Amino acid sequence: MPEFVKITSKDNQLIKFVSLLQTSAKQRKQSGLFVLEGLRICTDAYDNNIKFDKLIVTETALQKYSDNVDMFSAISDSCYVLSENLFKKISDTNSPQGIIAVAKMPLKTSEISNSGRYIALENLADPSNLGAIARTAEALGVSGIIMSADSCDPFAPKSLRSSMGTLLRLPIFVVDDIMTCIKDNNLRSFACVVDKDAQNIASQTFSDGDVLLIGNEANGLSDDVKSNADYLITIKMQGKAESLNAAAAAAIAMWEMIKEV
Amino acid sequence: MPEFVKITSKDNQLIKFVSLLQTSAKQRKQSGLFVLEGLRICTDAYDNNIKFDKLIVTETALQKYSDNVDMFSAISDSCYVLSENLFKKISDTNSPQGIIAVAKMPLKTSEISNSGRYIALENLADPSNLGAIARTAEALGVSGIIMSADSCDPFAPKSLRSSMGTLLRLPIFVVDDIMTCIKDNNLRSFACVVDKDAQNIASQTFSDGDVLLIGNEANGLSDDVKSNADYLITIKMQGKAESLNAAAAAAIAMWEMIKEV
Repeated sequence: MPEFVKITSKDNQLIKFVSLLQTSAKQRKQSGLFVLEGLRICTDAYDNNIKFDKLIVTETALQKYSDNVDMFSAISDSCYVLSENLFKKISDTNSPQGIIAVAKMPLKTSEISNSGRYIALENLADPSNLGAIARTAEALGVSGIIMSADSCDPFAPKSLRSSMGTLLRLPIFVVDDIMTCIKDNNLRSFACVVDKDAQNIASQTFSDGDVLLIGNEANGLSDDVKSNADYLITIKMQGKAESLNAAAAAAIAMWEMIKEV
Repeated sequence: MPEFVKITSKDNQLIKFVSLLQTSAKQRKQSGLFVLEGLRICTDAYDNNIKFDKLIVTETALQKYSDNVDMFSAISDSCYVLSENLFKKISDTNSPQGIIAVAKMPLKTSEISNSGRYIALENLADPSNLGAIARTAEALGVSGIIMSADSCDPFAPKSLRSSMGTLLRLPIFVVDDIMTCIKDNNLRSFACVVDKDAQNIASQTFSDGDVLLIGNEANGLSDDVKSNADYLITIKMQGKAESLNAAAAAAIAMWEMIKEV
């Protein structure tokens, strides 16, 4: 087990590096590292064989959660202990538990398969929506999430938090061109649109190898995706609201895709 | 149009009263008043014929949004102007727009009817879930929301915000005993439970006069509700997650209830 190095200066490079990882998707992408904060999500990551580059704890947490800290330190390349005040500088929460792991992005262990059923997100902007969609996808048994690279970052603290750890378990495929990925993998694509002339999702029959396409919260799917998708489908709405929010639309669409499995 | 009274002291009763209304469900219930903050939701309320007891704006907002402020002041019993600093004391947001209305709770204009289709929430705790459920309910065309009195407050700032104003439009019925209300109105009730032995929601046929029952986020529905409901139904889950979150489960259940209308 690595020894715990004590950090006492706010000018230490570690403090700056972790703060940057918390806020910058670019930094996460370049380093292949991301931040996990709190006992629950660190345990989720541990259970999913994610390895830690760094484990950072407060003196209080080192005592209070000693069993967990022992467990986490065994899979960490280096370990650090900080004062409560210094820890606040790298924490993303109002009441920090005192445990942060700088984790290594997991290597893909699965490929997109046309025996699976997927959801694909184009330019989804809100990490809370991504987290909610991932949670529903896992509960319903969707095979994985395909995301365009211009969507929000699945490794952002807010995404991870609202997914309740699901984003660490579900296969996530971030791709430059979503329709190319779908065609290359021989998936049959259903673009979910707000359009009275599109086919009613309730009358579709889904099968293995299908993928649902959900677009940006404000603008929906791009014209390129809509014109290249195999089918345009819609969730029939009767009410006054402009449209369903992305997480609710995705929940209903995934349910329709999966329910007869 | 009432004149704008200038408030300059943080000890003014108005400041204390509005702060209390922001945070206390009891205060809202006793006074029959609630707080609306920001241009968008005040406009939503105006469009839905909700009347204002007080309109409170900053000097900046008074100039910047003069047309809206004129419109709002015409339906307000009294109007006040505050400095930006004083306004921050009554605001619930980080970057206040400078417009708050103390609104009068609308009188019920509709009754529960057994030609409608409803969702009933028992002890739902999270205002964000309530807001999300209300948004989906309105979009899908659900007739209204029946809520147990121990649920979170539909007039709380967080509920109103996450509902995007929907809670001001959709009929909401807060009742002491949810099953008594359902029986008195001759509704047929479907309790949504996580239970493999319950009937699959996908195989139900819904009709007018039906109501879905959704329970507390952590504990689900009470034994009393489960034993008194006409049917126990479940959303079949294939995945690893423990259960769907309440807003996603409600979205799928309401879709199943409404889609063949």
